[in-house]
Amino acid sequence: MNNRLGRLFTVTSFGESHGRCVGVVINGCPAGLPLNEDDIQREVDKRKPGAGAAATTRVEEDKITVLSGIFHGVTTGAPVCCLVWNKDVDSSEYEKTRFQFRPSQADYTAFVKYGGFNDFRGGGRFSGRITVASVMAGAVAKKLLGLIGVEIMAHTVEIGGIKARPLTLDEIRKNVVENVLRCADSEVAGKMDRLIRKVREEGDSLGGIIEGIAVNVPVGLGEPSSDHLDGALAGALMSIPAVKGVEFGAGFAVAGKMGSENNDPFVLKNGKISTVTNNAGGVLGGISNGLPIVVRVAVKPTASIARSQPTVDIKKMKEVGLAVRGKHDVCIVPRAVAVVEAIMAVTLADFALRVGMIPRVIK
Amino acid sequence: MNNRLGRLFTVTSFGESHGRCVGVVINGCPAGLPLNEDDIQREVDKRKPGAGAAATTRVEEDKITVLSGIFHGVTTGAPVCCLVWNKDVDSSEYEKTRFQFRPSQADYTAFVKYGGFNDFRGGGRFSGRITVASVMAGAVAKKLLGLIGVEIMAHTVEIGGIKARPLTLDEIRKNVVENVLRCADSEVAGKMDRLIRKVREEGDSLGGIIEGIAVNVPVGLGEPSSDHLDGALAGALMSIPAVKGVEFGAGFAVAGKMGSENNDPFVLKNGKISTVTNNAGGVLGGISNGLPIVVRVAVKPTASIARSQPTVDIKKMKEVGLAVRGKHDVCIVPRAVAVVEAIMAVTLADFALRVGMIPRVIK
Amino acid sequence: MNNRLGRLFTVTSFGESHGRCVGVVINGCPAGLPLNEDDIQREVDKRKPGAGAAATTRVEEDKITVLSGIFHGVTTGAPVCCLVWNKDVDSSEYEKTRFQFRPSQADYTAFVKYGGFNDFRGGGRFSGRITVASVMAGAVAKKLLGLIGVEIMAHTVEIGGIKARPLTLDEIRKNVVENVLRCADSEVAGKMDRLIRKVREEGDSLGGIIEGIAVNVPVGLGEPSSDHLDGALAGALMSIPAVKGVEFGAGFAVAGKMGSENNDPFVLKNGKISTVTNNAGGVLGGISNGLPIVVRVAVKPTASIARSQPTVDIKKMKEVGLAVRGKHDVCIVPRAVAVVEAIMAVTLADFALRVGMIPRVIK
Amino acid sequence: MNNRLGRLFTVTSFGESHGRCVGVVINGCPAGLPLNEDDIQREVDKRKPGAGAAATTRVEEDKITVLSGIFHGVTTGAPVCCLVWNKDVDSSEYEKTRFQFRPSQADYTAFVKYGGFNDFRGGGRFSGRITVASVMAGAVAKKLLGLIGVEIMAHTVEIGGIKARPLTLDEIRKNVVENVLRCADSEVAGKMDRLIRKVREEGDSLGGIIEGIAVNVPVGLGEPSSDHLDGALAGALMSIPAVKGVEFGAGFAVAGKMGSENNDPFVLKNGKISTVTNNAGGVLGGISNGLPIVVRVAVKPTASIARSQPTVDIKKMKEVGLAVRGKHDVCIVPRAVAVVEAIMAVTLADFALRVGMIPRVIK
Repeated sequence: MNNRLGRLFTVTSFGESHGRCVGVVINGCPAGLPLNEDDIQREVDKRKPGAGAAATTRVEEDKITVLSGIFHGVTTGAPVCCLVWNKDVDSSEYEKTRFQFRPSQADYTAFVKYGGFNDFRGGGRFSGRITVASVMAGAVAKKLLGLIGVEIMAHTVEIGGIKARPLTLDEIRKNVVENVLRCADSEVAGKMDRLIRKVREEGDSLGGIIEGIAVNVPVGLGEPSSDHLDGALAGALMSIPAVKGVEFGAGFAVAGKMGSENNDPFVLKNGKISTVTNNAGGVLGGISNGLPIVVRVAVKPTASIARSQPTVDIKKMKEVGLAVRGKHDVCIVPRAVAVVEAIMAVTLADFALRVGMIPRVIK
Repeated sequence: MNNRLGRLFTVTSFGESHGRCVGVVINGCPAGLPLNEDDIQREVDKRKPGAGAAATTRVEEDKITVLSGIFHGVTTGAPVCCLVWNKDVDSSEYEKTRFQFRPSQADYTAFVKYGGFNDFRGGGRFSGRITVASVMAGAVAKKLLGLIGVEIMAHTVEIGGIKARPLTLDEIRKNVVENVLRCADSEVAGKMDRLIRKVREEGDSLGGIIEGIAVNVPVGLGEPSSDHLDGALAGALMSIPAVKGVEFGAGFAVAGKMGSENNDPFVLKNGKISTVTNNAGGVLGGISNGLPIVVRVAVKPTASIARSQPTVDIKKMKEVGLAVRGKHDVCIVPRAVAVVEAIMAVTLADFALRVGMIPRVIK
Repeated sequence: MNNRLGRLFTVTSFGESHGRCVGVVINGCPAGLPLNEDDIQREVDKRKPGAGAAATTRVEEDKITVLSGIFHGVTTGAPVCCLVWNKDVDSSEYEKTRFQFRPSQADYTAFVKYGGFNDFRGGGRFSGRITVASVMAGAVAKKLLGLIGVEIMAHTVEIGGIKARPLTLDEIRKNVVENVLRCADSEVAGKMDRLIRKVREEGDSLGGIIEGIAVNVPVGLGEPSSDHLDGALAGALMSIPAVKGVEFGAGFAVAGKMGSENNDPFVLKNGKISTVTNNAGGVLGGISNGLPIVVRVAVKPTASIARSQPTVDIKKMKEVGLAVRGKHDVCIVPRAVAVVEAIMAVTLADFALRVGMIPRVIK
Repeated sequence: MNNRLGRLFTVTSFGESHGRCVGVVINGCPAGLPLNEDDIQREVDKRKPGAGAAATTRVEEDKITVLSGIFHGVTTGAPVCCLVWNKDVDSSEYEKTRFQFRPSQADYTAFVKYGGFNDFRGGGRFSGRITVASVMAGAVAKKLLGLIGVEIMAHTVEIGGIKARPLTLDEIRKNVVENVLRCADSEVAGKMDRLIRKVREEGDSLGGIIEGIAVNVPVGLGEPSSDHLDGALAGALMSIPAVKGVEFGAGFAVAGKMGSENNDPFVLKNGKISTVTNNAGGVLGGISNGLPIVVRVAVKPTASIARSQPTVDIKKMKEVGLAVRGKHDVCIVPRAVAVVEAIMAVTLADFALRVGMIPRVIK
């Protein structure tokens, strides 16, 4: 019921997968930020299904419309509302199987929670389509962060068990835009693509891992207790549909390391305090330490698959087989990369505003 | 600056590691809950350093004092404030090395953020000692959850790369209380113990993984967007000092699975809807689905180690070697088990209150 | 930057006076509430300028559009977004006098706060037009409150120093809808109307007082400290543009009364606890006591007046005379009546949801 | 259940009238503020019952204890917790009349809301004694505001219908500290005092009006919608026990004024924009305009009076007569002056922090 991400820079979404639109109200954006529809469109386009094998056949133009908050190409300090209209909507399949819950989707929990009144078409409020709201907000957040030199990039590091090799920031920055799977390791991306095609053939789906990186984050964002920077990022990222795990820096690997291995010794680099390694992933005690913030999120395989699965029809209260038709991505990892970037941007912009590193009026 | 966990059932802590006390104010606890100091003490005792090799030699009695909110052994609906006094405090080592930041601790980030005014003694506000506040709140939350049959248990599943074998809920419930490492697999616990002794000898430290389980959670806690149950749990758990990763159900393993493997088919069990597997970890679309909520958190090895590490002295702005003396746990995993339980309890109680499953007055 | 009214039932507005639209996102509305555009339109129409002398000549159709949250005529539990498009907009006058701050308007403070980037046309974000967002939300809140028998009515009790005589609830309920000034005392309303016509002639404006009444509010809404019901109502009502005072029950008159006069003795009425008088205005200790909630708000005379006033041109930094042209109400009191009702409804619905008196799913 | 005043600088109280203590946790106080117990004690002492006729005979030493957040005489950025212990407590009268609700007190509403589990002794959580928590927080807020030159003063302007004459800021500042009734008009204060003595004799009580003034508030605090500065102040002030009305500047008098009278024309004073009059009370469009913020609050006569009043015994469900014994102020206005100052200070400090006018670290 809260439906709000952030504390000072806040994001409130509305809309459903097969409703009229998906939109967002962004509160707390400083006045004076040059912003136009193209800035937002560019980020939204990154989330669109690409030409690749992974993506859905639902084709939404996703042309964004700004309803408020921008005047003469600049933010005014008032809430920014923007939305995309839903157009390529065919709800017929959903009507037919309305009472047959798709396994590992929110159909069942939504049905119980909302007493059956939820808009079930295309997953309604639970659809991955709602993430376009985050991406619109993320576009604004990225522009704000750009003012203080913070850059955010995310990339696919694993799909279906195939792992990308470690690359430098420069390589990631350069390669990721060109690759349809958003994987910076082009050789491995080829293997991923072949696996996706095979799995699509089989009516199945794949998951993977996305790594998000924020570079140039100033020291001092976040606090102990409930304003932990990593806590806030983890909470927001885990709320992206299909995400089942979040880890920072060395992440789960810390369980097998000793302190002497895992600690990041402080050193002086050009007269500034830095660390040799970054096992912390850029956060110490809930506060950014100036190193890149590195976070990885695990994305489950698309729950909607073409092959038949056992499930329950709640109206008849009997077990049935269900093959999900509709239009779905075989693997949403490549499209979710833009969402991870957006969520990181929104969270970091919020934290930068809290400590005054982004001013309330941009001059 | 928010320093508040929860929305209706909220937890606000205060105090520092070497200050006068560590306390907590719990708002939103329903009136009419039978509650006494023993209920809280019992949970606090679980967090105390055990007899084992893993634990610190700092010995705090940690006897809790209730300052408000309880009248005639029952909660009144007013804020419950309770605290433990700090007694076994020796800050001399910290004064000496005040400007030499301990690697992978919050010393550096706190120093920058708070302009050097932070209470650095024993890590001050960033100490693991602050988690006793969460545990006190968790004790209250557990009593509330008990009213609706929800049970929470956590256990050590990995230390220093040594993994416990999968056990049943009954085995975990039974074994975990007896084992000083809070590991339900007693055979493996023996190996962990030997490793800890060896590492202690070497002046090093170890990390591990804790699994938290909530049983009997009703369907319907949580929402899409910013009130995702898993998002809220992840955010709160990641804010525990030393936690670097959080995953639900199949977690990061989803990256290597296909949809047909990872999906949890719905079935009818005794006329009720359930699922065969629980790869979702009890949450679908941000809403509890009635299956056990299963979450794992990665805990890094204690940053404070006895052997010398390179670091920087900020006053002299030169690199130095630092051996952290003070009193520390070789592996905080066993003590953090109580904290994971507490954070889960607080979050779940808050969500149950939001949807009215726990009433505002207990009769 | 918060831009959110309420805690569980929350209202977030967007849009500007001369922008594309004014809209609202309502979060936390229970699922299952029958709701259609007519329900909302009816309330919005109450706020439209009437045929009377008091009102502006700007004529907005104010036809509402629902963008999300309703499916098959029933709320789904998802955010309800609705808006009205701005049509009768002429910003030319505002462009001309952009740097000449209208006295007692927000032009100056907005200019300073937002660095001159604010949309100044028609007052932009500070226009009374933004209150249509509250009215849309209030329509939903009223339907929710209707489920538990709570009725909300507001009426004009004073304009330009002319006071309505005390009337019964029945009289108010009946008369207020018919009177264009929303004054239940038709004789006095005639006098008010004549004064308004005279003042309009003189290029001046008038203020007044609105009384809001909530009947049938159950005992138990609100809490001490920051969730005081009267505190929340006062805060929300004082945030309506042009409101300069708020009082409950006997209000400011308490300053001249003795305790024995002002106290409301408890009595038994039909076996239920009630009070003889209602000097408390329905709230004791921040908690509703079952008596009607009675609140009065003071509304200042419209700041925009036709006659010339001294002010400052900030660009030239010199004093100038300014006659505000544009389209304005001589007295906004009659139109603000709907806004007072809406704000009361939103606040009370929020409080009723917090204590579970309105359920999360309407069946 | 929220129990939190403020958004960035937040105040959470705990304790009851006859419990062990009344305390407060202040979150979001910048690091580096010189602060000691005397700073807080000084403000708390202002709230103590004076030698005058108005005050209670309950004598609490109210010696404050700081539990956290201050280190070497300076705030650390961690939560500041402080409290006063309850000592002069005699609950015997309350036990006797537990089920006989004192008219116009919170006994009845608290009983219903908390199912009879509330600590009723001395009004428990609803006692005026809880305001000492606000005063402790206000002391910290005042020190913060002092850094940017903001001064806050409040004074008694009416008691029992006797009104103080208008005085200059200098006169108020000077006189108010010396007068036991906190009334700057010493001649009128004498009359008030005589009335109070007479009313005390009669076993009755008196109300009044307090005016709060904040001088030197920078332009730009507050926002339209839910962060209206006057809305926030009104909400917080109306939540002080016994307050029944709040008005800014001309307040309720606006109802009888014309726009041309009420508008505050802008003028240039020493090259700066100011206004001739201050009918707005220092706030335009929810944003401070640089003029003094002037707010008046109506305080009802003490509900507890010595003479017998009709009420209901809920256990017997019959009407009875009740004379409230205990220890009470005949008129709480003089003591509430310190509370009004504190609440204004807390709110203004919070708003100044939000826009960065008070920095996060004081250097």
